[in-house]
Amino acid sequence: MAEEVLLLDLWSSPFGMRARIALAEKEIEYESREEDLTNKSPLLLKMNPVYKQIPVLIHKGKPISESLVIVQYIDEVWNHKSPLLPSDPYQRANARFWADYIDKKIYTIGRLVWGTTGEQQEVAKRELVECFRILEGEIGDKTYFGGESIGIVDVALIPFYSWFYAFETCGNFSMIQECPKLVDWAKRCMQRESVSKSIPDQYKVYLHLLELKKRLFDSHE
Amino acid sequence: MAEEVLLLDLWSSPFGMRARIALAEKEIEYESREEDLTNKSPLLLKMNPVYKQIPVLIHKGKPISESLVIVQYIDEVWNHKSPLLPSDPYQRANARFWADYIDKKIYTIGRLVWGTTGEQQEVAKRELVECFRILEGEIGDKTYFGGESIGIVDVALIPFYSWFYAFETCGNFSMIQECPKLVDWAKRCMQRESVSKSIPDQYKVYLHLLELKKRLFDSHE
Repeated sequence: MAEEVLLLDLWSSPFGMRARIALAEKEIEYESREEDLTNKSPLLLKMNPVYKQIPVLIHKGKPISESLVIVQYIDEVWNHKSPLLPSDPYQRANARFWADYIDKKIYTIGRLVWGTTGEQQEVAKRELVECFRILEGEIGDKTYFGGESIGIVDVALIPFYSWFYAFETCGNFSMIQECPKLVDWAKRCMQRESVSKSIPDQYKVYLHLLELKKRLFDSHE
Repeated sequence: MAEEVLLLDLWSSPFGMRARIALAEKEIEYESREEDLTNKSPLLLKMNPVYKQIPVLIHKGKPISESLVIVQYIDEVWNHKSPLLPSDPYQRANARFWADYIDKKIYTIGRLVWGTTGEQQEVAKRELVECFRILEGEIGDKTYFGGESIGIVDVALIPFYSWFYAFETCGNFSMIQECPKLVDWAKRCMQRESVSKSIPDQYKVYLHLLELKKRLFDSHE
């Protein structure tokens, strides 16, 4: 492989999906290695000693960690096509702001929606819906968050489309009712092969999270 | 003011300090407005409706929020001197990784060191020292995190120098004992006017945090 690109990944990780989508948008060939988070590989521990988490992109032997850092790296190294950040500094700042917002909110709050019960789950559900509504306001009538072409904000958020069904079912709410424009946007993204081939089926994620919740719950008994 | 640069700020905020240092490194003239977080200005609420937090940089009427987004914006708009990010994509990714690490860890864990007591404080203290040790390993024998010149990682971390005394005194540990190279690095940064004029006195921050803790504690009684 000319470019020597290796991705340490996990099929269900929205963070891994971001790297996959960015690589697919740039049409980069790469090798993918699935990690077992209960038995992390020596390579993962060596390449990401700080967090010991996937995704890690290894390019010519050098590791890059943290999904939004990886996406920006991919955009800067393979800048021949599909720019993922705008060229205007203000628009770049705006894109970074929203990608960071998604990064701070959706996974952490979503974790409480599928992983807890009762009042804690109810509070998290309301908070998650509020985040999605803020993003609904931001997408508005645009094709993508970045405008006419897919960008880092889309790449940051679209992986969670594969978690929508789990959020909805565990949290007892409906994305199409709460945020119809966001669902439309997600369906537009899914028409891109870079996205549809990079993110797993919603039901598969849901069953995986149920299994994970059961294991976490059992281990606390 | 030709450039029309306004910073909504708060003297004790490490995030506000980042914006101040970046603007000072670039020698940008700007107007600063101190916010009262117990009575936020209509301008702040309008310019940062998502987080309603400082700092907000308003450039030609357009707002930029989140301190590391602001620092990158400043670096991209005023690119005539003092580059804060390296030009090499891998080094840029590395700088973004560490700036993000500092962003995720120091404030949140430090908050538990000065704002709690007992076992919770003890756990946070150990965690904070561990973070500083990781950063100690990263600075090593370099002049700055980015090498020979100050960069985004230095700008992200150095504001917390003004919080060191509060962390040490509340957490009962010594930075010079735990992380001597980090203290040396901080003193080097403080020799720059861009830094020393942008960050407040350690004792002033300490007394401010004591006051804040008392108010937070009283309000929970």
